Amino acid sequence: MGEEKYIYDFEEGSAEMKKLLGGKGANLAEMSNIGVPVPPGFTITTKACIKYMENGNKFLDTIWPEVLRHMEKLEVKTGKKFGDEGNPLLVSVRSGAPISMPGMMDTILNVGLNDETVEGLARLAGSRFAYDSYRRLIQMFGSIVMGIPREEFERLLEEKKKKYNAESDADLQVEALKELVDDYKKLIKKKTGRNFPQNPLEQIRMATEAVFKSWNNRRAIKYREIHGIPDDLGTAVNIVAMVFGNMGFDSGTGVAFTRNPATGENKIYGEYLPNAQGEDVVAGVRTPMKIDELKERHPNLYRELIGICQRLEKHYRDMQDVEFTVERGKLWILQTRTGKRTPLAAVRMAVEMVEERVISREEAVMRVSPEDVEKLLHKQVDPKTKKEVIAAGLAASPGAAVGKVIFNSDEAEEIGGNEPLILVRPETTPDDVGGMAAAQGILTARGGMTSHAAVVARGMGKPCIVGCEAIKIDLEREEFRVNGLIVKKGDWLTIDGSTGEVMLGKLKLIEPTSTPELEKILGWADEIRVLGIYANADLPPDIRKAVELGAEGIGLTRTEHMFLAERLPIFQRTILAETEEERRKVLLEELKPLQKEDFKEILKITNGRKTIIRLLDPPLHEFLPGLNDLLVEVTRMEAKGKVGKELEEKKKLLKKIEDLYEFNPMLGFRVCRLGIVYPEIYEAQVRAIIEAAVELKKKGLNPRPAIMIPGTIHKNELIELRKLVEKVAEETFEREGVRVKYEYGTMIEMPRAAITADEIAEVTDFFSFGTNDLTQTVMGMSRDDAERRFLHIYIDKGILPENPFKTLDTKGVGEVMRIAVTKGKRTNSELEIGICGEHGGDPKSIEFCHRLGINYVSASPYRIPVARLAAAQAAIKYKYGELTKREIEAMEIPVKR
Amino acid sequence: MGEEKYIYDFEEGSAEMKKLLGGKGANLAEMSNIGVPVPPGFTITTKACIKYMENGNKFLDTIWPEVLRHMEKLEVKTGKKFGDEGNPLLVSVRSGAPISMPGMMDTILNVGLNDETVEGLARLAGSRFAYDSYRRLIQMFGSIVMGIPREEFERLLEEKKKKYNAESDADLQVEALKELVDDYKKLIKKKTGRNFPQNPLEQIRMATEAVFKSWNNRRAIKYREIHGIPDDLGTAVNIVAMVFGNMGFDSGTGVAFTRNPATGENKIYGEYLPNAQGEDVVAGVRTPMKIDELKERHPNLYRELIGICQRLEKHYRDMQDVEFTVERGKLWILQTRTGKRTPLAAVRMAVEMVEERVISREEAVMRVSPEDVEKLLHKQVDPKTKKEVIAAGLAASPGAAVGKVIFNSDEAEEIGGNEPLILVRPETTPDDVGGMAAAQGILTARGGMTSHAAVVARGMGKPCIVGCEAIKIDLEREEFRVNGLIVKKGDWLTIDGSTGEVMLGKLKLIEPTSTPELEKILGWADEIRVLGIYANADLPPDIRKAVELGAEGIGLTRTEHMFLAERLPIFQRTILAETEEERRKVLLEELKPLQKEDFKEILKITNGRKTIIRLLDPPLHEFLPGLNDLLVEVTRMEAKGKVGKELEEKKKLLKKIEDLYEFNPMLGFRVCRLGIVYPEIYEAQVRAIIEAAVELKKKGLNPRPAIMIPGTIHKNELIELRKLVEKVAEETFEREGVRVKYEYGTMIEMPRAAITADEIAEVTDFFSFGTNDLTQTVMGMSRDDAERRFLHIYIDKGILPENPFKTLDTKGVGEVMRIAVTKGKRTNSELEIGICGEHGGDPKSIEFCHRLGINYVSASPYRIPVARLAAAQAAIKYKYGELTKREIEAMEIPVKR
Repeated sequence: MGEEKYIYDFEEGSAEMKKLLGGKGANLAEMSNIGVPVPPGFTITTKACIKYMENGNKFLDTIWPEVLRHMEKLEVKTGKKFGDEGNPLLVSVRSGAPISMPGMMDTILNVGLNDETVEGLARLAGSRFAYDSYRRLIQMFGSIVMGIPREEFERLLEEKKKKYNAESDADLQVEALKELVDDYKKLIKKKTGRNFPQNPLEQIRMATEAVFKSWNNRRAIKYREIHGIPDDLGTAVNIVAMVFGNMGFDSGTGVAFTRNPATGENKIYGEYLPNAQGEDVVAGVRTPMKIDELKERHPNLYRELIGICQRLEKHYRDMQDVEFTVERGKLWILQTRTGKRTPLAAVRMAVEMVEERVISREEAVMRVSPEDVEKLLHKQVDPKTKKEVIAAGLAASPGAAVGKVIFNSDEAEEIGGNEPLILVRPETTPDDVGGMAAAQGILTARGGMTSHAAVVARGMGKPCIVGCEAIKIDLEREEFRVNGLIVKKGDWLTIDGSTGEVMLGKLKLIEPTSTPELEKILGWADEIRVLGIYANADLPPDIRKAVELGAEGIGLTRTEHMFLAERLPIFQRTILAETEEERRKVLLEELKPLQKEDFKEILKITNGRKTIIRLLDPPLHEFLPGLNDLLVEVTRMEAKGKVGKELEEKKKLLKKIEDLYEFNPMLGFRVCRLGIVYPEIYEAQVRAIIEAAVELKKKGLNPRPAIMIPGTIHKNELIELRKLVEKVAEETFEREGVRVKYEYGTMIEMPRAAITADEIAEVTDFFSFGTNDLTQTVMGMSRDDAERRFLHIYIDKGILPENPFKTLDTKGVGEVMRIAVTKGKRTNSELEIGICGEHGGDPKSIEFCHRLGINYVSASPYRIPVARLAAAQAAIKYKYGELTKREIEAMEIPVKR
Repeated sequence: MGEEKYIYDFEEGSAEMKKLLGGKGANLAEMSNIGVPVPPGFTITTKACIKYMENGNKFLDTIWPEVLRHMEKLEVKTGKKFGDEGNPLLVSVRSGAPISMPGMMDTILNVGLNDETVEGLARLAGSRFAYDSYRRLIQMFGSIVMGIPREEFERLLEEKKKKYNAESDADLQVEALKELVDDYKKLIKKKTGRNFPQNPLEQIRMATEAVFKSWNNRRAIKYREIHGIPDDLGTAVNIVAMVFGNMGFDSGTGVAFTRNPATGENKIYGEYLPNAQGEDVVAGVRTPMKIDELKERHPNLYRELIGICQRLEKHYRDMQDVEFTVERGKLWILQTRTGKRTPLAAVRMAVEMVEERVISREEAVMRVSPEDVEKLLHKQVDPKTKKEVIAAGLAASPGAAVGKVIFNSDEAEEIGGNEPLILVRPETTPDDVGGMAAAQGILTARGGMTSHAAVVARGMGKPCIVGCEAIKIDLEREEFRVNGLIVKKGDWLTIDGSTGEVMLGKLKLIEPTSTPELEKILGWADEIRVLGIYANADLPPDIRKAVELGAEGIGLTRTEHMFLAERLPIFQRTILAETEEERRKVLLEELKPLQKEDFKEILKITNGRKTIIRLLDPPLHEFLPGLNDLLVEVTRMEAKGKVGKELEEKKKLLKKIEDLYEFNPMLGFRVCRLGIVYPEIYEAQVRAIIEAAVELKKKGLNPRPAIMIPGTIHKNELIELRKLVEKVAEETFEREGVRVKYEYGTMIEMPRAAITADEIAEVTDFFSFGTNDLTQTVMGMSRDDAERRFLHIYIDKGILPENPFKTLDTKGVGEVMRIAVTKGKRTNSELEIGICGEHGGDPKSIEFCHRLGINYVSASPYRIPVARLAAAQAAIKYKYGELTKREIEAMEIPVKR
């Protein structure tokens, strides 16, 4: 046991020794090793901590002589002396577990100060600084090491501030601080019966024991329990020499980024404040100089700093955020870490580092986050702008928009492009689509992430906030109220669809910037990714946009809109028709020719790309007026004694709507149930698709339609409808003398379809997971109702980790998908499998899809670039055993034991 | 090949040789072997058929000499001669596959008749009979063997009837029949160019070939395809001597049941008609005598018949339905089969046969069907009564009821027991419960099998029909219309809740009869079954009834009713409360004491039996007035210009109801989501349960409460609520100084709960499958909406085999259950698993539950006896490799290859 080494000088360690030296110790050692001047110090290992705990908190005695030896070496290295009044060595005592763990003791600074050394420090750095440092030491030591509640010290501090009329701590002058030191010492004596230790070595010893003990305090144990961190790792203790930047004008402190964190430019960037400590920079009393200025003023220092920064960047292979202090002309690096950066900078750095052969393409792809891409592709509120948020709703479609408030969609359409508008509605319906298109952004008081407003806005790539229940809209007065504020028509409003925030006024926005570097990154992503990227897009402009943004095919074309607008009255006639014959006639003779033109336009744009067309999906009552509105209208007419044909017709319609009323439309007469009960509806659609494809083929194009059946629960549905599709297709091919290849597949969006996927795969060419509905049925949770009523409470209480409609619930819904994939491939090895729910654009969900081994994800057009990147990242993670080295290093939480 | 035996005399075969001799041949052989006098004959084997097909329909030549030899033996046995004018032997040619198969040729009678032998038959049995037999032979032979459409013969027959003014076939006299024979022969010549074969051997040969060929006719192939019967089995051909009961008064024909099929009494029962053929009995021209009368008139015959009947019953070990013919004093048994019987008889015979040591208890249990038990326990419309069905709805609660129509529940309650009533409502609400209790039966125009009316009626054991959409109720006029008929208040109505039929008038009902024999059968079932039988029952009388009917525990006590009736206004105050404090106060101080009394009463009745209490489940808006009604009311008041406090209050309530409105309440804010968001609701319930249990325990009782959380989707819900339950329980136990054992479990009714059952089982003591909701979510199908809108079409079209809300969808929902059972037991081997959905009372579903290896099924009280029997039958089937020998014998459709 005596042989074992329990203490390592920084020079003896390395980054790989995290388990023994803790994260902090290993990093300090690493920097030492590459020749970076870090303040000297040493690490008492985790093994010492473990022994200490094993021996009933008594092991420290055994290694104490060793600690003393290392302290002596430290004195030699720094040329200072511990406890020496003339040139006192001060140290910080820092805990550092192998895995960073809030809840444990963190750091005690200025250890070594006592009634004598404080005077030495005063001479070197000024009295105010010295006594402030001393009172801070006593305060931290008293509370952390000696167990006195922090509030007791705070109380004394407050009293002192009151006494001296000081506004902040910084306003307390030497006299007051000296008094405070006395008060603190008395408090310690009173509460513990012991004096604050004047012996600096005693301070180290007590602080080290406190660190060891903090490993087993309640918060730390709880944290380990939650995150599955083993209890037997122990923590290390780092003893580091303090350096001071406020020892005159040959001293100072600063921060440097190795590249420009805003633009990504490969040029050092940062600030320096002479004769100051870090906290002076934070306090903002003096204005620091730009790092560039050092070049002139302290050329040697500048050269050394540049050299170190380059070394650090090269070593850590990423832009570094470096904290440094100069003590009497000597440069010390206190900390280096990967620097935060803007999305623009992230992309530029990643690309340039590949070109500089610093990192690989894969690493570059990992360096840009999906959020970065999203931000680059949408307008953003300038982060420098001060913003006052007046309300928040669901972030339904990303990007920021500024415009004048308008409540009426028709009016918005009239104004058109002449003025920037924000359309504010209780909720939107198909009637609002024109107004939505004319506005810069949309804000609704009701609705969830799959509400009409949300879905349409995402399709249009327009910023949108939904379910912003705080705003109370008065359509008649054309205003809304929010927390006592009244916002009227014409007032300027800014909305941020990426955060859900609503702000009054006309905030400054940053334009989206697709740089050549971004194109490069996405190109690399395309080379790397395995998942195909398809788009959910219904209308020709959206489909065109999707192809432009890199969609390889269309994973979901909804056909609902082909029954709306000017065609709605025609379709309503089929719903109200008394006989099948009547219904067939209207569908095939009136609607089919119009829809054929729709499909021709779509298949022309997607020429050569697979285009999955979903047959009619929503319940029929969605194509009729709302029950409540009509009920109110009829009641009002009757109460006012009206009679006549109009009332009778309305009553008849009301009756029909009541007949079609469903208690749970989500679980009702919709999806392919429509096609089974009214085959003529699907027949008309299939005829339109096949005829459109045949016409294009005749013109030499390459249409690739795939017909998708929604909401199946039983293979028999698919067999029945396949017969219909084949019959129509064969008839058309024979009549026209041209054959077109088409595929036939189904959505997997009900649990039963997934559970019986083996049977279903036998009669289909492809599956497309409708993860929205699948989440709703697997979790028994209607999205609109859940988001409005209880989902936020579930997330707040930690019952659900995330909104399952945003990020796939992999344990539940994902497991159902896994069953479907396994069973489906078992009976049909050629089966193509994709996903076309909202999750298709969510990076975490895309990662899950990659692991599931499906063929593609389909996302709304403006999410395509994000999806391309996320798919590549998933492939890289998978390739390197789930996580890259960089991620493992950055990882704070290990996988559960 | 010459060695192989292709023909077996009946004496040579046995019941086990079905594959070779076909079902019919093997049975005739079996009877021969046990000494029953069956008409002599032989069987051409299936192997002959197979060879015939293999050799391109040519094999018959090879065995023809053998056929001739067997015909000669037949002549010897019968003392008649084939083709002989004086004493002609006639035979029937019958097909008989190993598995009975409609779609193949069946039987040709009277083969051997020609222009000469018909005269011989005329002398023996009369000219009319002889020529009628002849024309029938030609007709059958012409159509089946020679391929002339049956209609052509029918046309000639009709012409003849017209010519002779004959009303029916039986009115045609000899002359007409002779003409018909000529016409038929001409038709054959004209259509085929061949004559009807006068050579009797040629008749046999052609008929045999026709049987062989019929194996591969379209209908037969289709049938085999559907039922998975192998194509290479082939069919046998039976040649059987004809016997005639119309050869004078020493001849006759009859039917005998070996026991009384109506009462089960062990005494022969049947009818005999002298000098007659079977068809005379069917025609009903003469009245047959009771078998008993034979005792006096033909004592020898009677004795012989009794002997044979006893032998047959003993041999087949079940009551037989025996067809016999006496030809000139000689008794021939034509057929025996297991006799149909009334439920009453089935039970009595089963019990008595056990006592007679004929069958085992297990067999007795298999002999009674669950439907038998159900019929015995409910009033039935007397099957002898002529009934005119005026409408049909969903058979929601079994049994028949007669009463006067009443539309108003309050009025029904007033009349109370003074008059039999049928309560007719558009649908029922908790306000109607009193009226329902007072009525004999309930009929509603709307609602599905889980509607309020259906659930409450089943709980009360009261006949009920729901969703009878054909009836149009006019509550103001107190009448309903159905197909032009008007039924007014006070009119007599009969409803059959077992069939869903509604009949006008006061039909005769049969009273339910629980006999000592039924008790015995159920007792044996209890010994045999493995599944526990629990009850779904909420109110004390229902719970008492359930225990009386054999429930071993309560699998589901819903607590909704404890918030209704006079407590509704109190609970509404909590829903409308602005603060948690206000809500807590009302719940704990006002509602809890009342509910504690409820639970005391319940746990007193179930003393010693496990009692699973489900915490509040339905969405809160169910406790408030309906949105539409209030909307109409407010609109009307406003339109009429009303103002004032009442309107304002109503508007405020309307606002709240609109706030609580959900698009899909089934997937909304309900089940344990209520308890997570408003813990005070569950806390009040748990306090009431635990305090009630503690009080009973103090009185020396043995309360066994189990607290069940509805609709969980995530273990975190259960962890959170378990904390609440444990806290309340511990507080109470400590305060009261008494501890009560209680269990904590959850419904598994959402797919996610099943999929993550391993996690959920770790924090629960039991699972109870809520198969209603599980079916709804797994299939994405709201029961009410589906049954109203499309489910019947799905079943009609064969897309779904059955209503999945009645019989478990084992492939989909059942597979999800299997996953839950497997995963649940993996992490908690002590886990108790049951089912408390509607399926708990459905025999097929109970069988599935047995195979799944769960612990119990829970059914509504009046289904308990059915469930006890079904559970025993499932255990027996499972024990004997799924099917009993008897079932295998009775089986007509084999398991798919």
